Amino acid sequence: MARAIRPDWIAVDWGTSNLRAWAMSHTGDILAEASSDQGMGKLTQDAFEPALLSLVEPWLSDKTPVVACGMVGSRQGWQEARYRTVPCTPCSGDTTRVDTHDPRLSVHLIAGLKQDKPADVMRGEESQIAGLLALNPIFDGVVCLPGTHTKWARISAGEVVSFQTFMTGELFACLSDYSVLRHSVTTEDWDDAAFSQAIDDALSKPESMAARLFSLRAESLLNDLPAASARARLSGLLLGAELAAARPYWLGQDIAIIGAKGLTNLYATALRQLGCAPTIPEAENLTLAGLATTYLSLKETSK
Amino acid sequence: MARAIRPDWIAVDWGTSNLRAWAMSHTGDILAEASSDQGMGKLTQDAFEPALLSLVEPWLSDKTPVVACGMVGSRQGWQEARYRTVPCTPCSGDTTRVDTHDPRLSVHLIAGLKQDKPADVMRGEESQIAGLLALNPIFDGVVCLPGTHTKWARISAGEVVSFQTFMTGELFACLSDYSVLRHSVTTEDWDDAAFSQAIDDALSKPESMAARLFSLRAESLLNDLPAASARARLSGLLLGAELAAARPYWLGQDIAIIGAKGLTNLYATALRQLGCAPTIPEAENLTLAGLATTYLSLKETSK
Repeated sequence: MARAIRPDWIAVDWGTSNLRAWAMSHTGDILAEASSDQGMGKLTQDAFEPALLSLVEPWLSDKTPVVACGMVGSRQGWQEARYRTVPCTPCSGDTTRVDTHDPRLSVHLIAGLKQDKPADVMRGEESQIAGLLALNPIFDGVVCLPGTHTKWARISAGEVVSFQTFMTGELFACLSDYSVLRHSVTTEDWDDAAFSQAIDDALSKPESMAARLFSLRAESLLNDLPAASARARLSGLLLGAELAAARPYWLGQDIAIIGAKGLTNLYATALRQLGCAPTIPEAENLTLAGLATTYLSLKETSK
Repeated sequence: MARAIRPDWIAVDWGTSNLRAWAMSHTGDILAEASSDQGMGKLTQDAFEPALLSLVEPWLSDKTPVVACGMVGSRQGWQEARYRTVPCTPCSGDTTRVDTHDPRLSVHLIAGLKQDKPADVMRGEESQIAGLLALNPIFDGVVCLPGTHTKWARISAGEVVSFQTFMTGELFACLSDYSVLRHSVTTEDWDDAAFSQAIDDALSKPESMAARLFSLRAESLLNDLPAASARARLSGLLLGAELAAARPYWLGQDIAIIGAKGLTNLYATALRQLGCAPTIPEAENLTLAGLATTYLSLKETSK
């Protein structure tokens, strides 16, 4: 019979689409991991505790600390966690305790970050930034976190100085799934040259996006533009417009890109085309290092 | 008993969402009209003829000419009608005959317009432009046709010189229905000041759209931005970005706006804010005048 897993604490990354959990030792080793598709977006408020238990119950003993980051702490989540205001360190011991039915759970939701002006919010990315700083305390530059809502954050002296969110990923999803362009991007294939050209086009005249988007449809009707080219061009136009607006973030800065592999590579390709030399640390390591930072702060506080 | 309606011809405006038909006398009088929600977007290819008959059957005698414009002639429509290439007159007698099962129908689909570079297409709007020129043959300037896919067209010497399509309306629909912003624009109410400010913001820095969009969400989370303001601001940001890109079309030009009342008023408000003085002719009159132009050309040709 397998030996029971008895973690000192449980790390949880709970986003809109997925739930991931790691059984952690006090020395930072991963004893076990589990994941499901029970993201925040699929759950009503009373479904969060069962969704968590379905993954971590085998690991539980008395009052096992669970430290969770991500959209689980949003207004549509399990319980709304606080926001801390930038400039500030990405994570502190500031968490929101959740009232659970199961007495073996002791769940802490990590505070998100907010910015007053321009108004902006992040949840989850703060833990990846904390992880980056835990592994590389002298990092000074810009972190780009690609996703449905991509974040660009300025990091200096161990703090998040400012950040800005772009809805680029969600625009891509809405347009490819619901707009007339859905007829033109019916493929998972890709055209590197079309992507690269679209990045250039968008940067040279970023305001023309809504017109260039329809051009994709017209090109596929009139000139049989291949779906792979249309898809890559749609992506490049949207990302190029983002990069045009985010220029003050990336120009002349050290850039770390943190995120899922495919999207991270797209951002890296585009940024290299603009003369940048981004680094791409492994995202999961950073998430765990960030969650560990909060766990250690909590332990300090409770001493 | 009501006298039977026996039109000389039937005018049809068949778009993505709606089907409208008018029983017309040879002198251009409307004898009857009918409409349904059987737009092209809801119909498979074999459903077009029944959808048309359900409206016009009471008017039919032997081989009644039906002249139709709009997405009915698109690749997803009843039958793909030709495109004529700009620069050209908006309408000619160039139509595509549809093979119908009912021998009383003689259906002609009006050719759309296309532009080779930048690639662009229109279907339906050409008939409204033809109507404008029928009623005002010396019009020289720009026609703006707001809709899901707004068209801007340069008109000179009775011809469409060039045109450009913007997906602004579809972006608004996708974002308010499917993106995270759907939580923030849950209203039909409106905030004039927020719209006007967003037009200015977008024109001063149009490339920032994807960031400004997320700001709406953050403002509603952090500062309880009212839904009416968020909705008006979303509309203003998207329309402002369009106007920034369409500046070569409207700057210093005579502008006619043709379209549905609500959307037309929005465009007029924004254009007045930019110092333009657009005219707003009644759209339905123009559609009918345009369809009549094609009907008369067909009659000439068949003599």
